[in-house]
Amino acid sequence: MKKKNKKVNAAILIIGNEILSGRTQDRNIAFISNWLNSNCGISVNEVRIIPDVEKKIIESVKVLSKKFNYVFTTGGIGPTHDDITAQSISKAFRLKYDYHKEAYKILENYYGQNKFNDGRKKMAKMPVGSKLIYNPSSAAPGFITKNVLSLPGVPSILNSMIDNCKKYLIKGSKVHSKTLNLFTVESNISKKLGIIQNKYKKSVDIGSYPFFRLGKIGVSLVSRSTSKAKLKEVNKEIFKLIRSKNIKLLKV
Amino acid sequence: MKKKNKKVNAAILIIGNEILSGRTQDRNIAFISNWLNSNCGISVNEVRIIPDVEKKIIESVKVLSKKFNYVFTTGGIGPTHDDITAQSISKAFRLKYDYHKEAYKILENYYGQNKFNDGRKKMAKMPVGSKLIYNPSSAAPGFITKNVLSLPGVPSILNSMIDNCKKYLIKGSKVHSKTLNLFTVESNISKKLGIIQNKYKKSVDIGSYPFFRLGKIGVSLVSRSTSKAKLKEVNKEIFKLIRSKNIKLLKV
Repeated sequence: MKKKNKKVNAAILIIGNEILSGRTQDRNIAFISNWLNSNCGISVNEVRIIPDVEKKIIESVKVLSKKFNYVFTTGGIGPTHDDITAQSISKAFRLKYDYHKEAYKILENYYGQNKFNDGRKKMAKMPVGSKLIYNPSSAAPGFITKNVLSLPGVPSILNSMIDNCKKYLIKGSKVHSKTLNLFTVESNISKKLGIIQNKYKKSVDIGSYPFFRLGKIGVSLVSRSTSKAKLKEVNKEIFKLIRSKNIKLLKV
Repeated sequence: MKKKNKKVNAAILIIGNEILSGRTQDRNIAFISNWLNSNCGISVNEVRIIPDVEKKIIESVKVLSKKFNYVFTTGGIGPTHDDITAQSISKAFRLKYDYHKEAYKILENYYGQNKFNDGRKKMAKMPVGSKLIYNPSSAAPGFITKNVLSLPGVPSILNSMIDNCKKYLIKGSKVHSKTLNLFTVESNISKKLGIIQNKYKKSVDIGSYPFFRLGKIGVSLVSRSTSKAKLKEVNKEIFKLIRSKNIKLLKV
């Protein structure tokens, strides 16, 4: 029983001017969060997006690694001048920043000795004591330093690596969810919904999100809980509310 | 001359379990950031995504409103139990949370007296002293409290309201950018690029982002600066680097 209610959480730290400036639409947050919940029962409780600035990275890594069980960083582990994630994490934890022997070998093999230039060698440098997160698509590994897992920013490469994080993570209880799409407006149900939420405040989170579909206004009600039984109870109550107000459901 | 280098910055605070859980892909960050830079010369320097939890909202509003010229919050200003942005901002600034007369009138007119229920009335409550951000699509206004501007989470509604923020914002210098797409790998140019960046570190930010297009690997180099002249200089140097390495450009 105890294991069933084990809460494990994480934060995501997106390092990159290109996301902050709006030039690039982030796709890693939703991917990592969904993956963590489905595969490891870990909930993402905070996300920060910060620029490629050493001071900001150090500060964010310090704060988030203390507050959450895990921190996932994305971006800044390539070969160019703006790739400063590894150095910054070293400084945050006061660890030496040096070549990781295995990472060096992986990259040397991948590029061949002749093409293993300084930029590429840089990708083998990381905080001393880090363990590797293997990269099946472009060789350059990610790494885990204490409770901080560092991944690249390119979504296709990140996606190919994420399963290799699993062995470093303690599993929590998966959060189950149930979505009901109602053809009504939020204010029509807000009062009774608040009463239901209050009754189940310790076990279920109910979110209410307006949508526009098929030319009509609607509300998605998303209930989330680690307990399937409590989720069922809440949805029974929501169904009662729906029937009492004669609200139609959108079948999906 | 002085006005040309005026730096005005902002943070975005996304309030919403649905973004954190990965259920919903955020679209507001890139939109707000692009809008702020193009229309007001304001740079977004940090983004946080947090759950619908009062304590977290209060803490984040306090920290970010001190660190940045403006904070834009999205989400949590609707009629349901999970909409707690207005109350939380009131607490963060120790302001009374009460009906805003004009907001109340707007909503009463919009819904008609008979349909103006408690949930809808709630949308007229905000920190005392706040000014309204008008909403041309669904009436319920956003509001500005000190330097914190609160907008809804639904992208289409947010987009329709954003121009009404303009009158509350001090303008900064627009950041201009120039993108070059090179058919090469980052490590081929990283050393010389680092030298160029170092030479212009005070005036230009150069970002380097790998891409995959037309079956080939490439790098997008994005230079950003408030000075068009410095941007031109940097791009001249990058062109020199490109020619010396015989790198092809992707024309877009």
